[in-house]
Amino acid sequence: MTVIAIKPATPDVATAPPAFPLNQWYVAALGAELKDKPVGRVLLNRSVVLFRTADGVVSALEDRCCHRALALSQGTLESCGLRCGYHGLLYNGTGLCIEIPGQDKIPSRAKVKSYPVQERDGIVWMWFGTEQQPEPTHEAPPYTVHSSGEYVFDGGVVHYQAPYQLIHDNLLDLSHLGYVHLRTIGGNAKIHMNAKMTVESDASSVKVVRHMPNSLPPPTYTAAYPFKANVDRWQEIEFKVSHLLVWTGAVNVGTDALEDPKRGGFHMRGFHGVTPETETTSHYFWTMATNPVNDVEAVKATVIEQTALTFDEDKVVIEEQYKNMLRHGPKPMIDIHVDAGANRARRIIEQLKAAA
Amino acid sequence: MTVIAIKPATPDVATAPPAFPLNQWYVAALGAELKDKPVGRVLLNRSVVLFRTADGVVSALEDRCCHRALALSQGTLESCGLRCGYHGLLYNGTGLCIEIPGQDKIPSRAKVKSYPVQERDGIVWMWFGTEQQPEPTHEAPPYTVHSSGEYVFDGGVVHYQAPYQLIHDNLLDLSHLGYVHLRTIGGNAKIHMNAKMTVESDASSVKVVRHMPNSLPPPTYTAAYPFKANVDRWQEIEFKVSHLLVWTGAVNVGTDALEDPKRGGFHMRGFHGVTPETETTSHYFWTMATNPVNDVEAVKATVIEQTALTFDEDKVVIEEQYKNMLRHGPKPMIDIHVDAGANRARRIIEQLKAAA
Amino acid sequence: MTVIAIKPATPDVATAPPAFPLNQWYVAALGAELKDKPVGRVLLNRSVVLFRTADGVVSALEDRCCHRALALSQGTLESCGLRCGYHGLLYNGTGLCIEIPGQDKIPSRAKVKSYPVQERDGIVWMWFGTEQQPEPTHEAPPYTVHSSGEYVFDGGVVHYQAPYQLIHDNLLDLSHLGYVHLRTIGGNAKIHMNAKMTVESDASSVKVVRHMPNSLPPPTYTAAYPFKANVDRWQEIEFKVSHLLVWTGAVNVGTDALEDPKRGGFHMRGFHGVTPETETTSHYFWTMATNPVNDVEAVKATVIEQTALTFDEDKVVIEEQYKNMLRHGPKPMIDIHVDAGANRARRIIEQLKAAA
Repeated sequence: MTVIAIKPATPDVATAPPAFPLNQWYVAALGAELKDKPVGRVLLNRSVVLFRTADGVVSALEDRCCHRALALSQGTLESCGLRCGYHGLLYNGTGLCIEIPGQDKIPSRAKVKSYPVQERDGIVWMWFGTEQQPEPTHEAPPYTVHSSGEYVFDGGVVHYQAPYQLIHDNLLDLSHLGYVHLRTIGGNAKIHMNAKMTVESDASSVKVVRHMPNSLPPPTYTAAYPFKANVDRWQEIEFKVSHLLVWTGAVNVGTDALEDPKRGGFHMRGFHGVTPETETTSHYFWTMATNPVNDVEAVKATVIEQTALTFDEDKVVIEEQYKNMLRHGPKPMIDIHVDAGANRARRIIEQLKAAA
Repeated sequence: MTVIAIKPATPDVATAPPAFPLNQWYVAALGAELKDKPVGRVLLNRSVVLFRTADGVVSALEDRCCHRALALSQGTLESCGLRCGYHGLLYNGTGLCIEIPGQDKIPSRAKVKSYPVQERDGIVWMWFGTEQQPEPTHEAPPYTVHSSGEYVFDGGVVHYQAPYQLIHDNLLDLSHLGYVHLRTIGGNAKIHMNAKMTVESDASSVKVVRHMPNSLPPPTYTAAYPFKANVDRWQEIEFKVSHLLVWTGAVNVGTDALEDPKRGGFHMRGFHGVTPETETTSHYFWTMATNPVNDVEAVKATVIEQTALTFDEDKVVIEEQYKNMLRHGPKPMIDIHVDAGANRARRIIEQLKAAA
Repeated sequence: MTVIAIKPATPDVATAPPAFPLNQWYVAALGAELKDKPVGRVLLNRSVVLFRTADGVVSALEDRCCHRALALSQGTLESCGLRCGYHGLLYNGTGLCIEIPGQDKIPSRAKVKSYPVQERDGIVWMWFGTEQQPEPTHEAPPYTVHSSGEYVFDGGVVHYQAPYQLIHDNLLDLSHLGYVHLRTIGGNAKIHMNAKMTVESDASSVKVVRHMPNSLPPPTYTAAYPFKANVDRWQEIEFKVSHLLVWTGAVNVGTDALEDPKRGGFHMRGFHGVTPETETTSHYFWTMATNPVNDVEAVKATVIEQTALTFDEDKVVIEEQYKNMLRHGPKPMIDIHVDAGANRARRIIEQLKAAA
């Protein structure tokens, strides 16, 4: 056994102080990403390779060949596993080496760690447990918006040079629309800032609701749906530790109750998986689902394009915000009224970190 | 109040050892830079945003929104102040938050630090005091070359990956012309190296004078001015801690006294503001003023273009010099005769740092 | 004498623990690199400038002007030495300053360190000794493949963001051909992995030999040489601490003995100088010599082009391997059968480092 001494890198999760809530499912990939190539990704400081074998099953392994440490994500996908791109060792989905070219005997320690993953409704989740609880205690969350057939949707993956909680802050406070998204979905800043807002929370979730009754529908809405005149609009943001659901939409004024989860009208439903890469960098997995009545493909294309542009704008602001936080060092921040939801989410994260 | 713990960055000037002479006006910007956009800049380790409101007044604020720490220089300029690009907080020139969108009451601590600035003769100066002396003790320096009407001029701003004193060294020793500026203003290296040089200094300035009597005027000179034949040329370099003035020119041979500050002939007068960004990086603000008799615009354009090219050449050499100093670590340097002025400037800097 | 305090950089070799085998000749350059310009290079943590004066002699000096520390490799080559690009100090091949422009007297301490170099058979070697043994104890190694006239050859220099021993590992194990070089010289992975291999070693060298008798000649071989049918192929890899020789080739089946160093047939002889730049980065100097009977220039061009492409592929894999080692930190590696040669080379390096 050869040990090459190099300086220690990321400590293993077992010995590190918990920088993130543990005993959670985090998004590791969108299912659509895993086709003919492996995907290498650092998730909560663990370097992981994700891949889908010919049977359709997704696996997650330590992204390091046990022979000479090349990332397995640099290798090639075969029907039953992943082959290292240096000397050709072949691994199956459990992390076992099942072939060493030019050698009959495979040593029993020729294997890499595998991690608990579940693909559900088009989202690939990975369990991040504690030393005491390495295995999942429950199923990964469903997301029927993807599977019910009521919506068309698409999505993407964005890398952030910023800690994950700054993305929570951003998503939990849609009042930034009027300033950050002037060129895309912003609209009138004042309307957003002044909308009535309710905030509810429990030990592991926060819900922020805003209603804008009797308002003019934006152009995307009227193109997509036969609104008669003014509309009642809503924004619902649910924070669920490793992901957020943002449901916006509108019904004809004075028809369905905005509180009714079965309300009709035009919907835009965002899924936002926010997975720490490290303490200071993040992955952001998003999908946007919508239910246009008219011009389905055109509306979908517009919604997806606008959403992608919007997230690019958020990325710029959040990364600049973090750079400036580093530049200035720790200093107090003052709170304003729109911070209520984000601040509750921060308290939940602190409590979950302390509990792990 | 939310405090997000991140690793400490730049220490505040009050607690840091004085890496730079304090109780000084340093150049923060050229006045012409401040038009329809704010300018964010780190100056002596302080992150500052500079902007000009509709009344023409220039302000300098801490470049960090007191709400969620985005740089205010990422925001938008309004007639009476600067609006943050994240949630729209609006600040006036004194650093007071005067509007929080969607909120009537503005907390009294919603404000950012403001810094003493003065714009004078087209140069924006910022005062860097000590804890004992945060406010300016005197007016920012005049620069009548810009305002007298005798000269045409233009300028620029260059960022250096090198400590400020290496730029002083470079400017105080014009003997490098023959080696660094071969392709631009270099001319004959030997003439520059062998010109008689006098060096005078006091507690806060150094003056290096070189005379090259009865020499052939360079092409730029003859295009600009009706010289009859040979000329008496001079180079005067004044070091004034935060900036240097370099006055070169020529008169018809044997006419005006080269020592006479009212001498005629053709002049090129360089202003060089050298402002540390950090201990290892710098800002360099320059203008070049000239008084052509013929072809005013053409000569000005040529002089500005040549000057900009020359400073690009200096930047390359100085940044390479600094990289090589880091590569080799601290080692002795030997002095040669041309270093007299630069070495006196270094002693002045040391004395002023010790005094602060 | 002016001392500018900057943070210490690379420690001198005398005080550092020996990170590399010392009392060795390492390749500093290919002779063909040194024409009308100096070459600056860090070799075993020493920053060196290499240049050839008009008399054809190659010199190696400390790459730092003794005046203001600009790299001399930024200067200009003159017939008798190297002139600094800042203030024009001129140095001869022994490191003595022989001219200071504008100054008659040259101080005795105006000089830079010079290092022992030898150019032999088109390769420039530099001696890296210990404090006790700074001067070479023997001549630099010959390489008659370059000078015998039997071969045509060319070469190149590649920079690696990886420690030198990972390049040794790669060269000592040609079984990676089938996975890394699929698109170039790979051929059938299984044949390479299963070829009989012998490994011999002594205190300062390792020899790995593989024979592939009675096999189909690759297309390059048949274009270059009038093979009748199948061939007996060989691969010989010699590790010699600072460089490796890789000799591959083929003879008509059943003719010359593959062990005979005077065997005929078609040859490809690689020279591989692996010189640490720092503990974590390397220089790789290669030449490839061949002896085509037909189409000499075309075969040479093909061989050189293929070789360069192959080394680009190796660079990608080795740099990715090192990045992944840093990402994962020190963890055990398992060995497989093809590692025998590389592991012996690692033991030799350890012994030589301990001895220095």
